[in-house]
Amino acid sequence: MLQSFTTTARPDLGADRLAALRTEMAREGLGGFLIPRADVHQGEYVARRDERLAWLTGFTGSAGFCVALTDQAGVFIDGRYRTQIKGQVDLAAYTPVPWPETQPGPWITERTKDVIGYDPWLHTHAEITKLRDAGVHLRPVTNLVDRIWDDQPDAPMGQTFVQPESLAGRSAADKRADLAATMGAETAVITLPDSLAWLLNIRGSDVPRNPVPHGFALLHKDATVDLFIAPEKVGEKVRAHLGPDVRLHAPDDIDSALRRLTGPVRLDAATAPIAIRQILLDCGTKIVEGDDPCRLPKARKTEAELQGMREAHLRDGAAVVEFLAWLDRTAPGDLTEISVVEALEGFRRATNALHDISFETICGAGPNGAIMHYRVTHDSDRKIENDQLLLVDSGAQYVDGTTDITRTIAIGDPGDEARDCYTRVLRGLIAVSRARWPKGLAGRDLDALARFPLWVDGRDYDHGTGHGVGAFLSVHEGPQRIARISEVPLEPGMILSNEPGYYREGAFGIRLENLIAVEPAPRMADDRTQLRFETLTFVPFDRRLILTATLSAEERAWIDAYHAEVAARIAPRVGDAAKDWLIAATQPLVG
Amino acid sequence: MLQSFTTTARPDLGADRLAALRTEMAREGLGGFLIPRADVHQGEYVARRDERLAWLTGFTGSAGFCVALTDQAGVFIDGRYRTQIKGQVDLAAYTPVPWPETQPGPWITERTKDVIGYDPWLHTHAEITKLRDAGVHLRPVTNLVDRIWDDQPDAPMGQTFVQPESLAGRSAADKRADLAATMGAETAVITLPDSLAWLLNIRGSDVPRNPVPHGFALLHKDATVDLFIAPEKVGEKVRAHLGPDVRLHAPDDIDSALRRLTGPVRLDAATAPIAIRQILLDCGTKIVEGDDPCRLPKARKTEAELQGMREAHLRDGAAVVEFLAWLDRTAPGDLTEISVVEALEGFRRATNALHDISFETICGAGPNGAIMHYRVTHDSDRKIENDQLLLVDSGAQYVDGTTDITRTIAIGDPGDEARDCYTRVLRGLIAVSRARWPKGLAGRDLDALARFPLWVDGRDYDHGTGHGVGAFLSVHEGPQRIARISEVPLEPGMILSNEPGYYREGAFGIRLENLIAVEPAPRMADDRTQLRFETLTFVPFDRRLILTATLSAEERAWIDAYHAEVAARIAPRVGDAAKDWLIAATQPLVG
Repeated sequence: MLQSFTTTARPDLGADRLAALRTEMAREGLGGFLIPRADVHQGEYVARRDERLAWLTGFTGSAGFCVALTDQAGVFIDGRYRTQIKGQVDLAAYTPVPWPETQPGPWITERTKDVIGYDPWLHTHAEITKLRDAGVHLRPVTNLVDRIWDDQPDAPMGQTFVQPESLAGRSAADKRADLAATMGAETAVITLPDSLAWLLNIRGSDVPRNPVPHGFALLHKDATVDLFIAPEKVGEKVRAHLGPDVRLHAPDDIDSALRRLTGPVRLDAATAPIAIRQILLDCGTKIVEGDDPCRLPKARKTEAELQGMREAHLRDGAAVVEFLAWLDRTAPGDLTEISVVEALEGFRRATNALHDISFETICGAGPNGAIMHYRVTHDSDRKIENDQLLLVDSGAQYVDGTTDITRTIAIGDPGDEARDCYTRVLRGLIAVSRARWPKGLAGRDLDALARFPLWVDGRDYDHGTGHGVGAFLSVHEGPQRIARISEVPLEPGMILSNEPGYYREGAFGIRLENLIAVEPAPRMADDRTQLRFETLTFVPFDRRLILTATLSAEERAWIDAYHAEVAARIAPRVGDAAKDWLIAATQPLVG
Repeated sequence: MLQSFTTTARPDLGADRLAALRTEMAREGLGGFLIPRADVHQGEYVARRDERLAWLTGFTGSAGFCVALTDQAGVFIDGRYRTQIKGQVDLAAYTPVPWPETQPGPWITERTKDVIGYDPWLHTHAEITKLRDAGVHLRPVTNLVDRIWDDQPDAPMGQTFVQPESLAGRSAADKRADLAATMGAETAVITLPDSLAWLLNIRGSDVPRNPVPHGFALLHKDATVDLFIAPEKVGEKVRAHLGPDVRLHAPDDIDSALRRLTGPVRLDAATAPIAIRQILLDCGTKIVEGDDPCRLPKARKTEAELQGMREAHLRDGAAVVEFLAWLDRTAPGDLTEISVVEALEGFRRATNALHDISFETICGAGPNGAIMHYRVTHDSDRKIENDQLLLVDSGAQYVDGTTDITRTIAIGDPGDEARDCYTRVLRGLIAVSRARWPKGLAGRDLDALARFPLWVDGRDYDHGTGHGVGAFLSVHEGPQRIARISEVPLEPGMILSNEPGYYREGAFGIRLENLIAVEPAPRMADDRTQLRFETLTFVPFDRRLILTATLSAEERAWIDAYHAEVAARIAPRVGDAAKDWLIAATQPLVG
């Protein structure tokens, strides 16, 4: 099993550890210390040694941070984790703070005027600037949590491996040359592991779920790269693949290498550690502000990457169909959430192509479905009951592509409200799937289409409609999104999720998710350019939950056509029992 | 008749006038001169003496500007006027330039490095800054067009009159006190005539279609106002209404009054003439950047204003229904576009409440419907033919409210494509009408809802979905809009148009428009606040053009409910013939 159901955090030790941290704060003359979720690479998944927030507080969510003051410690968490945190931290020691409604700057200045310490390798310039602008007094220090964490694990030493050009669609040399010519600086600093992996056509094994290596790179105008990475992680094959234009250095050499740069140096204020900026400023090196230069080209997938994603989704779709067929003939029985997760991972392993799961499967029965980023543990595991909804959000890493799919399934009869809400969520997904729009629009301009069927019924969901997805990279990838805050124009080749939902706390949760890729649409009537989405995911929606009479003719036609395509593409890939189930599950809607 | 069908512009004189302008440019040592459409108040309608752009070039559109260089003169016009301009300017002397695609800054710097003159009373700080940032060398001069325009009309001297508190819903004293307490400055400069009218609860007669007076005001922190306005325009009743806290001054006294201010002074960089900023800077007076403080409170209509708008719309709806009934029994006959406009104005005059029309009626038959801001003249007048669409966009000013309505009508059988496009436009209007959304969203977040039915068919329209509307003020009012560029959150009381359209050049035009007001919706399922729209306009849509089978159940229910409400509200207000027509026109959809 890839997924684990144990809880490593020890909230019962949270108060003692906080006391130890405060001793270190006092020793440094600090009135507080910042403990982010992020590591130096600002990734969503971090290595065990970087789980400082969970080790200290007990909170294991994928986003959030702690501000430890001398008399109070706020754990800042977003709407997805309001329920979860109550069971994960010692509320006598830690105060959950609703974020982003409450910003850390004002929260701190209302409580103290003392100097707050921070580890400059774990925070970006953008973060620190925002705190300073709010009036917080800040001082960089070596990490105080690392000082008190006696058995802190070592840095990961996962092997790197080559991502072949047949899957990447472009050679690393071509990418280096292209970016070097357009980055507008002598050197660009690359700190995001998925950018590093994309640029060099390599993958890594340093963190679970994300096939990326930890490391830093300096891309120079002559298209050569200085790569700072533990030498143990780079075998002969990868060294040969990287070639002479990529010079390897030990991770600790980054400091002296930065000091030798003459500039101008392109640096991303939103993702690079502020420590790097400080080194460059110390040396008087000119900084050019600019996004990580890999972000946009990485988001525009090549035809080879798209082809890989299509194949990965058919393989994954077959595994999920086997799973759904098994679930239908087994549930509720004695199933629990954990046994469902184990079964699903089993069907994916049976493809003999599974590299990893792309994130911890979210499997929420009944009220657990309403916990948006629920990860089942032995403590929370819930029996699958009859007459409820089961929400399963999961994905896989294959070497040719990354998948992410959510289906919500009826176990028995979950009732009229569940069916009504399911149908509204589905109509939102269909609207995004059917959308065409004049080139130039951003995800923000489409977000309302997914929410309209819920809005008119006085409902909504507290997350974006879609996130970007990498190609055998991170399942959450920027900058493309379908969300109110996304101003980045959608471009052909970008892959996104399409995942509206609805959650009634304490009752049920619904989410439906396909991955989609932006592609050119036929020319408009006046010959202008339009874009649309190609659907990558092929798995049936639960026909038992669809109120057919409330669909428009186009919505109904879309579902029937989608189901026909699911049957045609997936039936040849599944066993006989699953095939029978699939044929029944993809019949045209009736009523 | 209020509307005129004559063309006052003389494009045949455009070349000679341009030559005279260039003589003045040479005398000043200038390589160019800017001729905006705007007057000192940046309004959409300008007085005859301010029609410099039309006088010089012949172009009569409601937006645009001319950049006259020594060897070329560009007339910058947006997508609405691409067709119209071809018949309005001497193309040997003037070059139409697509704007905003082409910006004046780069256009100028590519052609000349000479100094360009501008009249600082006709341009805002924002405009001039943008040109300077693009590298244009600029110098303020007295207006060169005024020097060569021998028979330039005098400034208008229309009478002001009182807008009673029963219609305004708040006393002027209350508005003055409220703004003075919150404007964050010692003095705010008010340069927009509709802001002036709103603040003081007066109306004016200086420009057609907009019941506003030309003037400037200084609102002070003690809630008193210095009002700069021609004394001839302010009779005894208005003087008594204004009271001792509003001090009257001649218009020319604004210069010395500005020089006496001690500051800080709040000034709107986007709407105030740059001349005012220059005077304040000359005197070292501190400027506080900020919107015209009237804009947002003016946009949030009072309950009395909303009640007035509702009544005005029932009155206007009855007039339009009389018109549509007449049109149906008369067209095509010998009707032309002008005779249709005359008839419609006649039905509005018959209400005995018509103060003015709110803009020049747009009446486009067949291909003229595709000219978005078409204003029929004797030269362009077109016979109404059988088997085509007729687009009629019109509105009225009543003392209790401003209306703006568009209906597109079938004359005979306009064909399948017209019906298909009409139905898609109608579905967009219905989506906006039915929308509910969590409080905090801007018009940008809703715009896609209106376009979706067209987008999926490869169609779109080149204008916003909705503009703000004043209450017995300008029919185009900011800052609220439903458009991709509108980031202003929608708030209860804001009135907007809902007017999707579709235009096929050379063939037909479709636009459907209701006015709508933002109001609170019932609480959401999780008790959060939602907003929705109240529809103000009650006039049937042409059932002959609706493809019923393509509507969703909700869309069909919306149309039937709307038509039932139109019948119930309007039938008691029209004559017997119109009543019979109305009953038939508002029957439930069939098929």
